[in-house]
Amino acid sequence: MTSKTASKQDSKTALIQAGIQLMQERGYTATGVQDVLSLLNMPKGSFYHHFDSKEQFAVEIIRHFDQEQTAVIKQSLDNTELTALARLRHHCEAIKQRILAQECRKGCLVGNLSQEMADQSEVLRKELAEVTGRWCDVIAQCIREGQKSGEIRNRSSADALAEVFWEGLNGAIMRAKTIKRIEPLDTFIKVMFDDFLKP
Amino acid sequence: MTSKTASKQDSKTALIQAGIQLMQERGYTATGVQDVLSLLNMPKGSFYHHFDSKEQFAVEIIRHFDQEQTAVIKQSLDNTELTALARLRHHCEAIKQRILAQECRKGCLVGNLSQEMADQSEVLRKELAEVTGRWCDVIAQCIREGQKSGEIRNRSSADALAEVFWEGLNGAIMRAKTIKRIEPLDTFIKVMFDDFLKP
Repeated sequence: MTSKTASKQDSKTALIQAGIQLMQERGYTATGVQDVLSLLNMPKGSFYHHFDSKEQFAVEIIRHFDQEQTAVIKQSLDNTELTALARLRHHCEAIKQRILAQECRKGCLVGNLSQEMADQSEVLRKELAEVTGRWCDVIAQCIREGQKSGEIRNRSSADALAEVFWEGLNGAIMRAKTIKRIEPLDTFIKVMFDDFLKP
Repeated sequence: MTSKTASKQDSKTALIQAGIQLMQERGYTATGVQDVLSLLNMPKGSFYHHFDSKEQFAVEIIRHFDQEQTAVIKQSLDNTELTALARLRHHCEAIKQRILAQECRKGCLVGNLSQEMADQSEVLRKELAEVTGRWCDVIAQCIREGQKSGEIRNRSSADALAEVFWEGLNGAIMRAKTIKRIEPLDTFIKVMFDDFLKP
């Protein structure tokens, strides 16, 4: 990579990261292209050099956020030193720590954009559906392993449990954001691991 | 009520109902006061006659929506001809039918506004926290009854189960909106009633 290409790539990454920051706080509609540029002190041209539109920008934001989050999820769920159930719990505890560090603000970018944009943009909706589907699959794989070893109940399929698990976790993140307290995450973890998932 | 008062009340209700319709589809930020007025063919003055600001308008929208939804919830949960568990299931089926009728669009206004506005407006956040807290309480009361009669498991408290239940249901509504399919609601109902809540 030449230094010119590197710098082009840097400015694109900087735009995406600023976009994540602003959209996570304000949502899609309330984040203007100009807000992103002002944050970085960049001229308008640099945005349209990298992105055709704000919608295309949001697609790349979702993909970038997906890469970051998939790495975080895998860090918990691929840790073979722990059992499947312990890994799943570790993942929830990591999310709880992130929400605490954010002072219960922001929530999950993908959850926020799903609520706001799924009816407004078919392009973003498809992207969000794909990303969340993949996250559920990773959780289902871990649950399947726990069901095989007998530490997770198997009255429901791993895919069904993963879906309800992921949706419940997202609901808890949303409620923590609404009441500005971490208790919903604590309650979710307690009920899931001390009750619902137990054989 | 004189006919003049009645008509003033009518125009206020019409504004609130148009606001619910638009905000449920587009969210708070993307709904302009002018959009609401245009939908009703009303002059600007009629909005500011009833509401000090768009934020105050949204507060009244949340309260109105709360009244409507509380009536719907109570219709299922106060039906003493059914057992507590059957009432809870009836409530979920009613929500599923509403989401189907909406072709998996819109989702839940209170859930949408929570995601979008909890960090943007302290006034709206407090209102949303209060409303959702009340809904969880109504569900907890039903679960408590089911635990007493032995048809709902009691390893977790009714309040904790209600919170996880309500958050899971909201997560399922969000996922249905994202993938534009009703399956997340079916899966939630199946896992909750055939597995998680069983003694």
